Amino acid sequence: MDKIRVLAPATVSNVVCGFDCLGFALREPFDEICVRKTSDREIKIINHDEFNLPTDSAKNVAGVALRAMLDAAGVNFGFEIEMTKHIKPGSGIGSSSASSCGAVAAANRLLGDRFSKPELVEFAMEGEKLASGAKHADNVAPCIFGGFVLVRSADPLDVVPLDFPPLFVTVIHPQIEIKTADARAILPKDVALGTAVRQWSNLGAFVAALAKGDYQLLTRSMEDLIVEPARKSLIPEFEAVKAASMEAGSLGGGISGSGPSMFMLSKDKKTAESVEAAMQQIYSQTGVEFKTYISPVNAEGIVFL
Amino acid sequence: MDKIRVLAPATVSNVVCGFDCLGFALREPFDEICVRKTSDREIKIINHDEFNLPTDSAKNVAGVALRAMLDAAGVNFGFEIEMTKHIKPGSGIGSSSASSCGAVAAANRLLGDRFSKPELVEFAMEGEKLASGAKHADNVAPCIFGGFVLVRSADPLDVVPLDFPPLFVTVIHPQIEIKTADARAILPKDVALGTAVRQWSNLGAFVAALAKGDYQLLTRSMEDLIVEPARKSLIPEFEAVKAASMEAGSLGGGISGSGPSMFMLSKDKKTAESVEAAMQQIYSQTGVEFKTYISPVNAEGIVFL
Repeated sequence: MDKIRVLAPATVSNVVCGFDCLGFALREPFDEICVRKTSDREIKIINHDEFNLPTDSAKNVAGVALRAMLDAAGVNFGFEIEMTKHIKPGSGIGSSSASSCGAVAAANRLLGDRFSKPELVEFAMEGEKLASGAKHADNVAPCIFGGFVLVRSADPLDVVPLDFPPLFVTVIHPQIEIKTADARAILPKDVALGTAVRQWSNLGAFVAALAKGDYQLLTRSMEDLIVEPARKSLIPEFEAVKAASMEAGSLGGGISGSGPSMFMLSKDKKTAESVEAAMQQIYSQTGVEFKTYISPVNAEGIVFL
Repeated sequence: MDKIRVLAPATVSNVVCGFDCLGFALREPFDEICVRKTSDREIKIINHDEFNLPTDSAKNVAGVALRAMLDAAGVNFGFEIEMTKHIKPGSGIGSSSASSCGAVAAANRLLGDRFSKPELVEFAMEGEKLASGAKHADNVAPCIFGGFVLVRSADPLDVVPLDFPPLFVTVIHPQIEIKTADARAILPKDVALGTAVRQWSNLGAFVAALAKGDYQLLTRSMEDLIVEPARKSLIPEFEAVKAASMEAGSLGGGISGSGPSMFMLSKDKKTAESVEAAMQQIYSQTGVEFKTYISPVNAEGIVFL
C-alpha cells in the first residue's frame, strides 16, 4: 500500500465552559486528503480546492505536521499530499486541524500505524503552531481521537477521551473573518476567583453530564462567564441565534473555536434541523452570507476510505 | 416513631482542583446525633461532648438548620437534639456540616421523609451560613448525598452526585486553629486566565477520571495552582506530608476544606495505612499534636441507626 485517502472532520473547540481544553469532532464538513508515498524525501502538496493555501510544505500546516512525523520516523522516502478542502480556513471549526490531522493519520497508516494517537496529535500540533502561533490541541485531539476530548495539558500532552451520549450539532458559519489573534486580544487577562470557580464548576458538571448522559445537566452547565461575554460582539446576531436555537429545542451551545462559527447541541437530528431553520431565519435577514451544517458528534474522528 | 439516631460523617471539601465546588464524604470520624420529637415548638440542644458548642438553638448550626426545616414543614411540634460530636470544630473536615446535616436528616425521617435530599442540603446550608458567613454547600451536599458530589451552583442549588471508583482516604488533623476568614483572606482575588484554564482542565479531567475509574488520571489531575499555593504555608510540614504520602503510594491529595486538616487518596486500605504511617512519622517530629483517620470514601452519607 503506497496511497491512502481519508476524510478529516471539522471540530469544535472552546466548548462553552471548556475554553482551551474541551473539543469534539463533527462528521460534516470534512476535508478529503490523499497521501501517497514518493521515492524522494520531499513533501509535495497539491491543492484541489479554491482556498489558495500554500503549496510550500514549510508554510502549509499539513506540510509541517508531516515533516515532524517524517523526522520522527527517520525513513528515506517522502509524501505527496492531495488536499480537497471543504472546511473554509478561518471558519472556527478546525480547518487547519483537519489538514494536519488528515495528513498525519493517512501517512501513519502508510507507515504501518507506527505512531500512537497521542503521537499523531503531537505532530498535528506543529500545524496548529504554524496556523495560530500556539501549539494547542483542542481541535487536533478530537480530530484524531473522535468524540469529545478534554485536553488536560498540552505540554506535556495529556488527552482524555470522554464518554458521551448521542448528540447532534448544528453549526452556522457566517462568512466573515475573525483573526485568531484579535479574538485572543479581546479576552480578559485575569478573572475574578469567584467567576473562575463558577466556570470550573460548570465544566466539572458538563463532563459529569456527558458521562451520565444527563441532557438537562448539560443544558444547565453550558454557561460561559468568561470567553463568550468578551467575544460575542464579534459575531453578528450571536444572542438572537442562541435564543432562537434554545427556543427550537437546543440543549445549548456557543462560539466554536474563536469564531465566527457558532454551534448548538441537540438531543436528536430532528431538533438539530429545527435549530438550523431558526438560525437560517435570523441570518437570512442580516445580509451576511453564511453556511449551516448538521452533524452527529463523530465518535470515530478520521475516516479511512 | 418519635426518636431517631444517626451517624453524620466528616466530609472533605475543596478537593484539590475543585475549590468551592467538589467534596466527598468520609466514613470516619462522624458525629452521633439523636433527634426526638417534643410537644412544644422549640428546638432544644443537649451536648454530650467536650466542645462547649452553643445550646441556644439560634446560635447552634444544627439548631438553625432545623429551624429552617421546621418553618418549611409548618408543624406544631418541636425537636430535642442530643449531640455527641467526635469531629472537632475548626478541623477542616466539615464539623459544622455534620451537625446540621445529621440534625435535618434525622428530623426528616421523623417527618416521614417529607423533604428531598436537595431540600435537606438547603436547610443544612443555613447552618453553614451561621458557621462561616457563607451558604456554601460543598460539605453539606456530600454529607447528605454521600460519595463525591459536585456543587455546580449553590444558588440556585444544583448538586451533581458523581460516579467514583473505590477510594480510601487518609486524613491528618494537626490540632492547630485556622480561622476560615483568615484562610479566605489569603486567597488571590483574581487569577490569570491561563492559570484558571489549567485549573479547570484539571477539574474536568478529575471528574472524568472518577467516572472512568482511571487512577493514573486522578493522580495527574490532582494539581491545584490557585488555592494550595496560597494556603499551604498555614499548615506545618504541608509539603513534607504530601511528598511522604506520595512516596507511600498515595494517588494525591491536599488541604481539606480551609485546613488545617490534610487528606490523601489511595487505591486501597493498605496503601492508606502506609500513608498514615508516613504522616505520623513526619508529624511526630513537629511537636504539633495531631490525629489521623483512615476511611473509605463513604457512598451512603448519613447512616440511620
